[in-house]
Amino acid sequence: MASELASGPDKVSVDLGPRSYDIRIAAGELSRLGSRLNELLPAKHAVLIADAALADPSIGFAESAAASVAEGGLRVTRIDVPSGETSKSPAELERIWEVMLDAGTDRKSVVVALGGGVIGDLAGFAAASYTRGVPFYQVPTTLLSQVDSSVGGKTGINLSRSKNMVGAFWQPIGVSIDPDTLRTLADREYGSGLAEVVKYGVILDAAFFDWLDSNADGLNGRDGNVLVRTIARCCRLKADVVEQDERETTGLRAVLNYGHTFAHAIEAVAGYGQLLHGEAVSIGMACAAELSVRLGRVDASFLSRQNRLLEALSLPIRVPPMDLDSLMEAMRRDKKTEHGKLRFVLPTRMGHVELVDGVAERLVADVWRACGVE
Amino acid sequence: MASELASGPDKVSVDLGPRSYDIRIAAGELSRLGSRLNELLPAKHAVLIADAALADPSIGFAESAAASVAEGGLRVTRIDVPSGETSKSPAELERIWEVMLDAGTDRKSVVVALGGGVIGDLAGFAAASYTRGVPFYQVPTTLLSQVDSSVGGKTGINLSRSKNMVGAFWQPIGVSIDPDTLRTLADREYGSGLAEVVKYGVILDAAFFDWLDSNADGLNGRDGNVLVRTIARCCRLKADVVEQDERETTGLRAVLNYGHTFAHAIEAVAGYGQLLHGEAVSIGMACAAELSVRLGRVDASFLSRQNRLLEALSLPIRVPPMDLDSLMEAMRRDKKTEHGKLRFVLPTRMGHVELVDGVAERLVADVWRACGVE
Repeated sequence: MASELASGPDKVSVDLGPRSYDIRIAAGELSRLGSRLNELLPAKHAVLIADAALADPSIGFAESAAASVAEGGLRVTRIDVPSGETSKSPAELERIWEVMLDAGTDRKSVVVALGGGVIGDLAGFAAASYTRGVPFYQVPTTLLSQVDSSVGGKTGINLSRSKNMVGAFWQPIGVSIDPDTLRTLADREYGSGLAEVVKYGVILDAAFFDWLDSNADGLNGRDGNVLVRTIARCCRLKADVVEQDERETTGLRAVLNYGHTFAHAIEAVAGYGQLLHGEAVSIGMACAAELSVRLGRVDASFLSRQNRLLEALSLPIRVPPMDLDSLMEAMRRDKKTEHGKLRFVLPTRMGHVELVDGVAERLVADVWRACGVE
Repeated sequence: MASELASGPDKVSVDLGPRSYDIRIAAGELSRLGSRLNELLPAKHAVLIADAALADPSIGFAESAAASVAEGGLRVTRIDVPSGETSKSPAELERIWEVMLDAGTDRKSVVVALGGGVIGDLAGFAAASYTRGVPFYQVPTTLLSQVDSSVGGKTGINLSRSKNMVGAFWQPIGVSIDPDTLRTLADREYGSGLAEVVKYGVILDAAFFDWLDSNADGLNGRDGNVLVRTIARCCRLKADVVEQDERETTGLRAVLNYGHTFAHAIEAVAGYGQLLHGEAVSIGMACAAELSVRLGRVDASFLSRQNRLLEALSLPIRVPPMDLDSLMEAMRRDKKTEHGKLRFVLPTRMGHVELVDGVAERLVADVWRACGVE
């Protein structure tokens, strides 16, 4: 069993040459933010970009983070950003740039992101572009962002009709993950993160999948130790992939898209925001495993093992009422589709996936039907 | 004498490891644009971002460039951008992103900038940020952009109260410089480029300064051969600096700011747009050389040699009517000033400059007066 699963408070080192950094994962990290920044750089000024929901006094994370940074001797400029995907816009980015300018931000400042994926992506691009690059520190506060966007360096915003179309690869100088921030997370948001957790086991690490299977109760109960070990393992697994394909040039990063060809179609037809991303990914993994069974790449026991764990974590595995033709059409339009050919990431055994091109549309339609589409 | 000055049509190779590229400098390059792109990458789609002034039928450069790219077998999406600094705005950037999206631009497309520094900076940042990076090709059409912004990889836009505050370091995959594009350039725009040309001689290359001195007539007459040799030498000199300090981290790039501490103050007090940048730099070099004389770093013959060449090229060397206190105040506010200490790049001999801190304000005021301020 990997060391990340055996020990407690943890550190994951992401090795990207001159852009290497550490991810600290432990209860109480939020209150150590100021000292972490001081360990990393001589900054005297921090721009703290926070999800406005975390400023709610009943939650208080934004206040705690700001207090810790100020105790570290840094002047703090706080920018609260409205919750939700619509904040990943050119207009909100421009507002942040102008506030940074007014606050006297320069290349010796540090930008700190406090929130989920939306805040990390937006603040990260603001950091990457302001004066052509300011150091960036991430404090992800949702399970999804802790296991996903804290590794990889992708930052960006949405355009009017397409998500994540504009941005930069900009690695953080460090990441602090405090599992205590998950206590106040809504059940569906938390579950959305668990879907990505299961994904890592299925695509990269059979032993981790088994460990998750044995710890489903701890995951459902948001047990602190189980969470630290889970997050650390996911970060390590994603780091292994990103270290080999930092800028998405070799195609290796594609394995992380397991379940996503189906999930994107479900999200597009449902309308973005109806289903949480992780929920769509959970259903998408059930569909992808079904397709893999039909192609003879895995047997039925693989499918039932995967789906049993998803269900044990209260995740959906059936497609909600939707029109088959609309789903097929959405798949053809997906931006990851090349020249209309459907491409899937499919398992061959637990912990291993492969890229599969040229699957017949009729077979895909059969899979949709097997997963609940009428 | 350097080889760039001895030969005709030329190529300057900028060595930046995996981001290395060539600058082609020759009459007729505009019509070879399509083949240059084909030599460099297998792109099937180009986004041609052009200064709207070059679309004027009496000039026709935008049409020629588009035709050449189309002849190379690439689908062309043309975006004309209004002339002038106000186009380096978040709003214009967003407009370009949306047009790129509508045109189906992806990482296999190439963005081509056709125009001066404004177009290069804006199109370069659009290329750097769209899908986190699209290949970028530059076709600078002003003397200033040919000798300055075609080397260095700085891209960006302005914020409401500060220039070039947002952007990216994004190297082009290649640069085409066609001296024929200078024939229609307004005299003051052309002269503005010549000021930067003289700067390269003064700061880095005494032999080049002598050569310029002997070829002032050719420069004034926009002689094709003299221009090719001049541009090639300037690009080589700037490349030597940028190769050692790609991201402005070692401080070496600061030598390129000779004359700029004075020039920025003049521009700020005159109001941006009253004087062209190169005109302010010309006056700034006269001021900096005067300061160097007063500090005993060069003798009076250095000052007169430099200023004689500037005047031979019809460039200004006297400060226009301005208030001394305003100039001193603008110097203190300059963003390159660190904690209010005045910093200058000053010559010690022809072809060599040094960074000088802690110059007494009274001495600077004396220099302003010696250069025309009452």
